[in-house]
Amino acid sequence: MSESMRAFVIEEVGRTAVVDKPIPEPGPEEAIVRTTAALICTSDVHTVKGALPVPGGRTLGHESVGVVHRLGSAVTGFTEGQRVLVGAVTPCYRCTYCQRGFTSQCGGALGGYKYTTQMDGNMAEYFVVPAAAANLTPIPDDVPDAKAVYACDMLSTGFMGVEHSYLQFGETVAIFAQGPVGLSATIGAHLMGAGQVIAVESRPERQALAKQFGADLIVDFTQGDPVEQIMDLTDGVGVDAAIEAFGFPQTFEACVRVTKAGGRVSNIGYHGENPNPLQLPLDAFGLGMNDKAIHTGLCPGGSERMARLLRLMQSGRVDPTPMTTHTFGFDEIELAFDLMTTKQDNIIKPLITF
Amino acid sequence: MSESMRAFVIEEVGRTAVVDKPIPEPGPEEAIVRTTAALICTSDVHTVKGALPVPGGRTLGHESVGVVHRLGSAVTGFTEGQRVLVGAVTPCYRCTYCQRGFTSQCGGALGGYKYTTQMDGNMAEYFVVPAAAANLTPIPDDVPDAKAVYACDMLSTGFMGVEHSYLQFGETVAIFAQGPVGLSATIGAHLMGAGQVIAVESRPERQALAKQFGADLIVDFTQGDPVEQIMDLTDGVGVDAAIEAFGFPQTFEACVRVTKAGGRVSNIGYHGENPNPLQLPLDAFGLGMNDKAIHTGLCPGGSERMARLLRLMQSGRVDPTPMTTHTFGFDEIELAFDLMTTKQDNIIKPLITF
Amino acid sequence: MSESMRAFVIEEVGRTAVVDKPIPEPGPEEAIVRTTAALICTSDVHTVKGALPVPGGRTLGHESVGVVHRLGSAVTGFTEGQRVLVGAVTPCYRCTYCQRGFTSQCGGALGGYKYTTQMDGNMAEYFVVPAAAANLTPIPDDVPDAKAVYACDMLSTGFMGVEHSYLQFGETVAIFAQGPVGLSATIGAHLMGAGQVIAVESRPERQALAKQFGADLIVDFTQGDPVEQIMDLTDGVGVDAAIEAFGFPQTFEACVRVTKAGGRVSNIGYHGENPNPLQLPLDAFGLGMNDKAIHTGLCPGGSERMARLLRLMQSGRVDPTPMTTHTFGFDEIELAFDLMTTKQDNIIKPLITF
Amino acid sequence: MSESMRAFVIEEVGRTAVVDKPIPEPGPEEAIVRTTAALICTSDVHTVKGALPVPGGRTLGHESVGVVHRLGSAVTGFTEGQRVLVGAVTPCYRCTYCQRGFTSQCGGALGGYKYTTQMDGNMAEYFVVPAAAANLTPIPDDVPDAKAVYACDMLSTGFMGVEHSYLQFGETVAIFAQGPVGLSATIGAHLMGAGQVIAVESRPERQALAKQFGADLIVDFTQGDPVEQIMDLTDGVGVDAAIEAFGFPQTFEACVRVTKAGGRVSNIGYHGENPNPLQLPLDAFGLGMNDKAIHTGLCPGGSERMARLLRLMQSGRVDPTPMTTHTFGFDEIELAFDLMTTKQDNIIKPLITF
Repeated sequence: MSESMRAFVIEEVGRTAVVDKPIPEPGPEEAIVRTTAALICTSDVHTVKGALPVPGGRTLGHESVGVVHRLGSAVTGFTEGQRVLVGAVTPCYRCTYCQRGFTSQCGGALGGYKYTTQMDGNMAEYFVVPAAAANLTPIPDDVPDAKAVYACDMLSTGFMGVEHSYLQFGETVAIFAQGPVGLSATIGAHLMGAGQVIAVESRPERQALAKQFGADLIVDFTQGDPVEQIMDLTDGVGVDAAIEAFGFPQTFEACVRVTKAGGRVSNIGYHGENPNPLQLPLDAFGLGMNDKAIHTGLCPGGSERMARLLRLMQSGRVDPTPMTTHTFGFDEIELAFDLMTTKQDNIIKPLITF
Repeated sequence: MSESMRAFVIEEVGRTAVVDKPIPEPGPEEAIVRTTAALICTSDVHTVKGALPVPGGRTLGHESVGVVHRLGSAVTGFTEGQRVLVGAVTPCYRCTYCQRGFTSQCGGALGGYKYTTQMDGNMAEYFVVPAAAANLTPIPDDVPDAKAVYACDMLSTGFMGVEHSYLQFGETVAIFAQGPVGLSATIGAHLMGAGQVIAVESRPERQALAKQFGADLIVDFTQGDPVEQIMDLTDGVGVDAAIEAFGFPQTFEACVRVTKAGGRVSNIGYHGENPNPLQLPLDAFGLGMNDKAIHTGLCPGGSERMARLLRLMQSGRVDPTPMTTHTFGFDEIELAFDLMTTKQDNIIKPLITF
Repeated sequence: MSESMRAFVIEEVGRTAVVDKPIPEPGPEEAIVRTTAALICTSDVHTVKGALPVPGGRTLGHESVGVVHRLGSAVTGFTEGQRVLVGAVTPCYRCTYCQRGFTSQCGGALGGYKYTTQMDGNMAEYFVVPAAAANLTPIPDDVPDAKAVYACDMLSTGFMGVEHSYLQFGETVAIFAQGPVGLSATIGAHLMGAGQVIAVESRPERQALAKQFGADLIVDFTQGDPVEQIMDLTDGVGVDAAIEAFGFPQTFEACVRVTKAGGRVSNIGYHGENPNPLQLPLDAFGLGMNDKAIHTGLCPGGSERMARLLRLMQSGRVDPTPMTTHTFGFDEIELAFDLMTTKQDNIIKPLITF
Repeated sequence: MSESMRAFVIEEVGRTAVVDKPIPEPGPEEAIVRTTAALICTSDVHTVKGALPVPGGRTLGHESVGVVHRLGSAVTGFTEGQRVLVGAVTPCYRCTYCQRGFTSQCGGALGGYKYTTQMDGNMAEYFVVPAAAANLTPIPDDVPDAKAVYACDMLSTGFMGVEHSYLQFGETVAIFAQGPVGLSATIGAHLMGAGQVIAVESRPERQALAKQFGADLIVDFTQGDPVEQIMDLTDGVGVDAAIEAFGFPQTFEACVRVTKAGGRVSNIGYHGENPNPLQLPLDAFGLGMNDKAIHTGLCPGGSERMARLLRLMQSGRVDPTPMTTHTFGFDEIELAFDLMTTKQDNIIKPLITF
């Protein structure tokens, strides 16, 4: 008889619970990880609100680290007890989408995001890692769990936003919204050689973090049209790239407006909250002819990328932990989730310890 | 006293004329070309309808070849009497936009398109070539004017549409509309290794040309929703890239819909006719996360690119002249322009000889 | 008791044989294919000469197609009896090298090339396909085995040579040697939009094939220094890219010499025959400062790429079968191998049928 | 009668002098700059030793800033008296090489490097700026001359070395030699997101600067084979990229040896001192098949790039001035040049003030 574990699940739209489930068994290419630390993601708040159709009882969560509990028969190169990181997106790496390099679209659009949508998530005491050979990443001894866990989603997504900005060194970039993903983009833009980072944010504590993470200028959209403010700050020229980290049509449109001809718009915001299509204004879009480009994407996973994120933490070049405003034990998960839903108490990112 | 020449001008919105103007003098970095052949572009039809604000009396035209008449004092490497091609877009190559590689955005959005918008166009017996060192291209002896003139705009724009599709060999591409620019994209997609070219077009004569130029499949949008037809033709998967060569919100949206996750939408249609913003439907756009990319651009100019287009004509790999459905002398220019405006008589592209 | 099959093996350096082996069993992620057609590769000639250390009794061969005989327990999406293609290189797609996109370097340098070097090759009646989910490619009904089998290595390698040339449409490229890989590069250069393809070859029958496959000019190195000939043909400017498909220091150096500043050298030749290091002459290499780039690689595998190659055969855009100068039954394999070793009878590529 | 100025010239191989020359007049597209600060470059030491054939009396120097003295008739957008920077390489931006994006190869190999080789250099009280529209860069008020002057060559070259490394964030890079160009590459690698920078250098003061500029590890080649040391430091795997900033066959070969399969070698060293060809060892080069790439280049110029470098200085992200070990007035130029030739007194970079 298999042992049981506790898992944080969605019962139905609007209702969560902590339930007992059997500790899972690994298939030949899988691994089971015992969770040691996790972060709650706003995506899960969206899921509970009904953004994605998931069956009742499905475990939530996709930002967890832990230690290898068991390895599938075909998985080599890891040992039980080893500290490991698993990306929020866990591609198979073998389908045609993966072979084309679009691993987050594994098997089809957004299909690399398997936790919660296709299988139990990892806000639980144990969780399954598909395609473990590619998705298990050893954590170096000198990187604590509470830091490493930011690689799973936040840094990977934020840095993708910067990669999709195709910045040349010294170029200018505006980042719309400084929630945890936007803040991660700010860390990434600073890391990858931006010459000027303009962060759009109104909350004082997020503005302060943005500056700490490398933003050169803050635009407060409650103090005036952010497009006008950014055009003024750039002498009417606009920025080389804009990163949408908010997920609303207005900020998406603002990104198109603040970029110069030849500029890039990089979307990392989740646009599932607002049912209206995104719009491209003809003037700012140059009637479709001003060499602007728009890129989109979903948190890349995989151990190779995760290892590079961990290396940057190891060398001290990247430290996202100032985003951890709150810490809870797993027995307080429902309280933590409520706080993440209401965004009260100036919460940015709550860490869950196991 | 300077000699005079005839020029085809816009008198005011909706009215054109052939008028006498002085033959222009070259500035130090300019050249004067005596026109030998030209094509009429639908862009000029748009201009006459009022799409772009231009002063009365401005010469129309931007697709002309000819012979060097006079060279500015600082222009070397060319000789008077030499047959030359000049791209529709004539960048300075020295401003920051040009230095960044966005030469069609010379000095700012769409600023490389100087003929008619910033200076007299070249539907005239003589015309000015700015930055002649970069914009004059010798025409090889074995490429006739009537063929070479397609490089100025049609092939350069259509091929840019393919370049912005970032096709890997053997990939699939749908091209929406087979007017002269869409047909040029079809030529380019075939030239650059597409595995399957799906051309969307309803007019039989354009369908036939599309097939002649390399389209593998034709989708007639009068026979059913083209998005559904393309999804059916691709087993529900969609295409790797879609090229918008029509200039309407519906076709732009269709491009987003028919591309698979990780696909590219490449816009070459002119979206100045319809005032509504373009729309990105959230489902087909993957909520901003399905690794789709959208690229835009404006006909690249410059002698280096023009020379590559001419080389492809020289070797026989590219022959766009089947698009020339009509030929007129310059004294019939108003008749030709009317025909291009009404699109009667199955006109695709009228050649003007001087 | 397992059934037995015949396999063509290397007994020791310089000696081959046809032997009986058990038909292999698939591991969970593997498949077994029953061979229907194969090509002999010069790489195997090198192997038999001792270029690579392989244990005695190892089956040779890496260019085979067939039908699915058995599927491993974890392999889905294929059916027994289905016609399939398997690339010469069969990566795991999950190691860090594969995740970085260098699938031919799976697990380390050249590690994606597993047949013969790490496991039995596929010049046998049955063979194993590792990571079958990524390495099995269905063959369309309208592509015969004798054509499809060219995708395994020849076309994939030759086309990679062109991809690593980073050709813009209309650019010029010189291809050194027109053996089957060089001829495949010629097909690819023509397919992907080269403006001028210069093929360097002295054998008349290979020159003829090169022209048939799209070469515009032939340089016969027995008639004078090919570098000088190419510089003459390009008005002293040189080519945009050069592809080394021969595998000797002199041709590699010639590639560096014939490219213009900013040009690319793409190596697809196997340099294991000559023990001397390759040399970069300082003048032609611009003292290390003339923006030349050198790219190398090894036949990419994977079903996504193979499917694109097959699509090009399906549409009739690519037909490599004129390279098949000889056909043998598998019972004549030793005769065929001898002929491939001596390169007598104007052999280019011998097809083996099962 | 034109006024005269002092200029530092090469009289003949091995002999320099300060002489009087007329202050130059600008052509229509040129500008004259009055020099305020300059750096001496080791390239000039090579020139005086005879590396490049230049006529006697030619002014040396290519790293100077100053104020606009006079503008050619066709140059707009600048004012006399304005503080400006001019890159060491001053391309025309209009020839086919420039149009292809290889502006440092303007007109042909290395042709963008015009100072001293094609015209008087700028180690003089006044100097000519060709194609001034593209090559004059305004210096922001808050960047002093002594800092801005590093953009001309050192930072532009060093950063190009990093750009040609095609680093993904968090990757590893080894930089061979920490002279001023190698140190600039170290600054650039740190700026652009390297995860681990290994600097190869034996001189203590350069090791210290390398660490200050972002090197994580120092390899002293006097303490053992640097290839072995780097392989040890990377657990036998090697680095993702290696930058050659020394200019010798041994270091070039070491770069090939320390990179992993799929790695990039980026050359910024000047290989004119040693007449032997560079060598690619077959094992480390994977017999030409291990997906390694080699890139070369020459200090990119142009105001757009220079402005990005200046922006990074303005924001405080880049400060190269710790490399300025010595400062001299222009009347001490010969003393400074001697010191740069002998490399005594731990000199790295001497600043010349006017």
